[in-house]
Amino acid sequence: MKISICGATGYTGEELLRILSGHPQAEIVYITSESQTGTGIHEIYPHLTRLYDSKLASMEEIENIASASDVIFAALPHGHAMEAGKKIIAQGAKVIDLGADYRFSDRKVYEQWYKVPHTHPEAKAVYGLTELYRDQVKTARIVGNPGCYTTATILALAPLVKNKLIELSTIIVDAKSGISGAGRGLNLAYHFSEAQESVKAYNIAGHRHTPEIEQALSEFAGTAVTISFTPHLIPMTRGILSTCYASLKTGVTPDQIDEVFASSYRQEYFIRLLGRGGYPVTKNTRGSNFCDIGWHYDHRTGRVIVVSAIDNLVKGAAGQAIQNMNVMFGIEETTGLTQAPLYL
Amino acid sequence: MKISICGATGYTGEELLRILSGHPQAEIVYITSESQTGTGIHEIYPHLTRLYDSKLASMEEIENIASASDVIFAALPHGHAMEAGKKIIAQGAKVIDLGADYRFSDRKVYEQWYKVPHTHPEAKAVYGLTELYRDQVKTARIVGNPGCYTTATILALAPLVKNKLIELSTIIVDAKSGISGAGRGLNLAYHFSEAQESVKAYNIAGHRHTPEIEQALSEFAGTAVTISFTPHLIPMTRGILSTCYASLKTGVTPDQIDEVFASSYRQEYFIRLLGRGGYPVTKNTRGSNFCDIGWHYDHRTGRVIVVSAIDNLVKGAAGQAIQNMNVMFGIEETTGLTQAPLYL
Amino acid sequence: MKISICGATGYTGEELLRILSGHPQAEIVYITSESQTGTGIHEIYPHLTRLYDSKLASMEEIENIASASDVIFAALPHGHAMEAGKKIIAQGAKVIDLGADYRFSDRKVYEQWYKVPHTHPEAKAVYGLTELYRDQVKTARIVGNPGCYTTATILALAPLVKNKLIELSTIIVDAKSGISGAGRGLNLAYHFSEAQESVKAYNIAGHRHTPEIEQALSEFAGTAVTISFTPHLIPMTRGILSTCYASLKTGVTPDQIDEVFASSYRQEYFIRLLGRGGYPVTKNTRGSNFCDIGWHYDHRTGRVIVVSAIDNLVKGAAGQAIQNMNVMFGIEETTGLTQAPLYL
Amino acid sequence: MKISICGATGYTGEELLRILSGHPQAEIVYITSESQTGTGIHEIYPHLTRLYDSKLASMEEIENIASASDVIFAALPHGHAMEAGKKIIAQGAKVIDLGADYRFSDRKVYEQWYKVPHTHPEAKAVYGLTELYRDQVKTARIVGNPGCYTTATILALAPLVKNKLIELSTIIVDAKSGISGAGRGLNLAYHFSEAQESVKAYNIAGHRHTPEIEQALSEFAGTAVTISFTPHLIPMTRGILSTCYASLKTGVTPDQIDEVFASSYRQEYFIRLLGRGGYPVTKNTRGSNFCDIGWHYDHRTGRVIVVSAIDNLVKGAAGQAIQNMNVMFGIEETTGLTQAPLYL
Repeated sequence: MKISICGATGYTGEELLRILSGHPQAEIVYITSESQTGTGIHEIYPHLTRLYDSKLASMEEIENIASASDVIFAALPHGHAMEAGKKIIAQGAKVIDLGADYRFSDRKVYEQWYKVPHTHPEAKAVYGLTELYRDQVKTARIVGNPGCYTTATILALAPLVKNKLIELSTIIVDAKSGISGAGRGLNLAYHFSEAQESVKAYNIAGHRHTPEIEQALSEFAGTAVTISFTPHLIPMTRGILSTCYASLKTGVTPDQIDEVFASSYRQEYFIRLLGRGGYPVTKNTRGSNFCDIGWHYDHRTGRVIVVSAIDNLVKGAAGQAIQNMNVMFGIEETTGLTQAPLYL
Repeated sequence: MKISICGATGYTGEELLRILSGHPQAEIVYITSESQTGTGIHEIYPHLTRLYDSKLASMEEIENIASASDVIFAALPHGHAMEAGKKIIAQGAKVIDLGADYRFSDRKVYEQWYKVPHTHPEAKAVYGLTELYRDQVKTARIVGNPGCYTTATILALAPLVKNKLIELSTIIVDAKSGISGAGRGLNLAYHFSEAQESVKAYNIAGHRHTPEIEQALSEFAGTAVTISFTPHLIPMTRGILSTCYASLKTGVTPDQIDEVFASSYRQEYFIRLLGRGGYPVTKNTRGSNFCDIGWHYDHRTGRVIVVSAIDNLVKGAAGQAIQNMNVMFGIEETTGLTQAPLYL
Repeated sequence: MKISICGATGYTGEELLRILSGHPQAEIVYITSESQTGTGIHEIYPHLTRLYDSKLASMEEIENIASASDVIFAALPHGHAMEAGKKIIAQGAKVIDLGADYRFSDRKVYEQWYKVPHTHPEAKAVYGLTELYRDQVKTARIVGNPGCYTTATILALAPLVKNKLIELSTIIVDAKSGISGAGRGLNLAYHFSEAQESVKAYNIAGHRHTPEIEQALSEFAGTAVTISFTPHLIPMTRGILSTCYASLKTGVTPDQIDEVFASSYRQEYFIRLLGRGGYPVTKNTRGSNFCDIGWHYDHRTGRVIVVSAIDNLVKGAAGQAIQNMNVMFGIEETTGLTQAPLYL
Repeated sequence: MKISICGATGYTGEELLRILSGHPQAEIVYITSESQTGTGIHEIYPHLTRLYDSKLASMEEIENIASASDVIFAALPHGHAMEAGKKIIAQGAKVIDLGADYRFSDRKVYEQWYKVPHTHPEAKAVYGLTELYRDQVKTARIVGNPGCYTTATILALAPLVKNKLIELSTIIVDAKSGISGAGRGLNLAYHFSEAQESVKAYNIAGHRHTPEIEQALSEFAGTAVTISFTPHLIPMTRGILSTCYASLKTGVTPDQIDEVFASSYRQEYFIRLLGRGGYPVTKNTRGSNFCDIGWHYDHRTGRVIVVSAIDNLVKGAAGQAIQNMNVMFGIEETTGLTQAPLYL
């Protein structure tokens, strides 16, 4: 499979390269960077020495890149992938966009939250949360790969929403992310001396992953769902923990929760159910495509608390993108993604 | 003021020593440790060299200790302070217990959550959340100093509960703590290689700070309040961030929230209001007795999200204990507690 | 290849399992733990769920284990592997010992530094620093796998010593290690709140890796070499950086240093030469079997400073052990070891 | 005492403010920042809320600032303090420069290492390593406050050099610093996700603190001393550990080392001698002005290894500057500097 990566020098691009270096069917044909065109990727990321020595191309060559590729991963700032998407599709290649451009079925939602017009609304993009949209991903030419918080949260809540076990108006999601989620761009907030040994919330009631979570939950519920979503920045590099709260509907029992999680995910390789009372730990997923889920019933308040853990850069970005690629190209879904987590 | 510390080798004891070394009226007369009786405190905590060279005494001498002291800080495992409390009071000294023994007005709640009988129920203990119980603390002989999560959470929610702005049944508290909260005892969960670069929830729907938060909020509400409380372990040493969710009552406006926070805390030196839209950062409070509070109105869901940050070992333990001591002895309340936070 | 691991629950055992899960010819037949016999390894290390569900056996079955295995990795406390070694060899299996029992050609050195008698002195063990002892490893039945500090340091200094470029009496090694090197045993020094945000030296002039480094350098020099070696503990989990100082012999030029490094390691997949002026970074090797080396000429003092970086648990332990296994069994040396480093 | 701080928004400026907030004789009259003139310091550093609400002035007002101040701390990039110094002195105020401009007695050394001409060579500046230059500091009008690595290293080596116990040509200094030493400027190397969980050396054989260490040691030796100095970046915020190696002169005994350390520093409040075999830990000095020193005799090689630990921002910068101020103005030297270290 001939693969190109647009925007290879960001953290998501780096992770695609890292994982694909162990994918038996992957051949990297082009990688791009506008700011460092011509440089070898191993000069920017010396840890990739021995694994890659490709030089970075420019998006100006996107038609050539597309015509030489079966699939292109776009790891670009939002707004850029939809421009490239049209050209890529025209050359017959498929697109997996790790940004937000192709995630929304309603362009108005995208435009409202991302503040730019959508220039490729005719694209028949599929939302790439693989476990929940697998059939659509199989035949997709364009996949909008989900956000990191989104993946962790939707996987935690989908079984409860689909099976109508919770009061939709009571959903609250309190999520904690490592700092790599903010990417490679410099900012005082991510300066070591400022971020180390500290925790804070940010973008309360306004984070852009909110409408993405709501879009999926609304589809599963068959009605509009509005949630409260609060992200937090944690002094670690990788990992997201999503703690999700909801009131059970009257009469719903904890056993029913056990059943819907088991029936929803029993067959899923990448979802590891820790069961009722289980405590996911981000470290257990580090470097891997796993999503660990545990849930708790608070009998004092009638709430269910579901906790999910992922590696934000893998199941929350590059890993799931490769999982989608495998599905789109009829390869065994776990190919290249069975590396053990780096617990230590 | 003659001060003794029972249980001086734990992290709370160490913090009492650290802070009291800068308190102009404090004179340490005895410090105790059962496991290291006879050892100099600077041998256990070499950073205290030059500041202390006292040897550790034993609780077997508690009567002598009490008779030589004006006030005793008990930094002991729960169950031990109430035994000592009787003897200390009998000698005429006052007690500030940093454990749970004197925190509950209903001994049954204590016994249910802590699984031991209460052996000093006749004690007229006062709950030492200074800003909210200052008048009672002034005349107290025994103070039950609040827990760390508790302090951060009650300070965040009290103004809303007292002023009846929120639906009491909708309160959810999602808290994040540094690892020093777990103390100095060894445990694989707090082993550096296991705790670093990872986040997890623990004790969901069962943490012992839950009834303590509920006790205070119920008093302020004039009716029983039940909450969901989820603590998380964060890879840092100090700090607690408490993210509190509640639905506003119909008709309540964001301006009313602004007003009740301002009127509740405007005069409080240790509470720094960041206002509507403010984001507390644990680091801003590190090493200090400050509690920073910000709040957000989520107009999409009608919820208020209040975030508070403290240093778990200071305002969440030793600092507040010293603040209570100042109040109990008629000293200016901020004495010894105005050290600037160690942001870096 | 049928593989067993004795002592699978320590960090080194865990790393063997992690890496071998991606080795195409590896089949794990037995894993052992004396303290947790009967438990599933995924219960102790939940991150290995999906990859392993083996139950832990006991060393009491070592004969059966050995007869069912082609090779056994011993990840045991020193003193234990040599006891097992005799039995394993008797069953016809090979042994790769990740501890110290088989590292020394002179049993007296072992006994002096490790304070136990050597009970298997007749073993014809080979020292498994693969790049430097490859020919001997090929035919070995017992390999003493090198220590972590040792690997980083010997690889940094061997070319200079072999080619007689430095004054042997001037060698000083100042090494920095992540905390995982101390293993999984609990100790206040590795308690998160104590180890975070701090650095210290330990075992100055007395660390047990000293005689191991000296043994190899003495062999290469053809004369006894004595060094100063100072290890330090750094607040991170993985990685060793070894900073090595030596005075150049009169007349030696920096170009000669360039040449000996290039000629020594040009063909080595796992050694990445950063050249004169290069700065190895432990993170670039994380999770991988690479050793990165850079060197500097201090013209003001006539010293060469060589810096090497490895992942202490991989090239410094489990990875090199698997590299040795590959060599011993005539498999391509890099098999199972080409995973990209986890930079982030 | 009326104090102004030029360059108050950098980390050194912040530390001056933090410490001076507890200094009973300090009154801050002006603080400056060119990039944020007019902003309140508590807006830039919210942790200082309640302690400061001063607005930042500009260096354009330096004459006014100087005439209103008894002493001015310059926390400016090198090259800027010497320009300001002339004007400050002209107004009768004293200057304590935390940068490099006034550290060198030979302007040529400054110009060679800092690549700018010295524009205030007639200044009679005193090198402010207080314990070693106290008498000169007492009467100084301009103090060049030492660098962070410099302070730790010179204090470790001075007794040995002054007493001629070591071979001067064998001195090697391997130092480890927290990342706050690099200041508040953004740089990929100090981006959290890049710096966390990693160690590296930098500026080998070329760091600007080298000539500063050599200047002091040469003075104490009475002859030119050249050293090898290697700084390393450690994943923590505060702290420097300096590991210093030297060969003892023939006939020198370990007892002599004990004696010279004791006689040199016995009276020094801020120097805590851990004795022969002692291991300084950076954490024990955090937030404080202490310098902890331990030493080891390596009988196998005849070397002495001295290890010193400081807080780079306190004894290595702001704390020592305030110590110098106290000395210059005849105040008790420890005033405002007796805060206990923040071990946790």
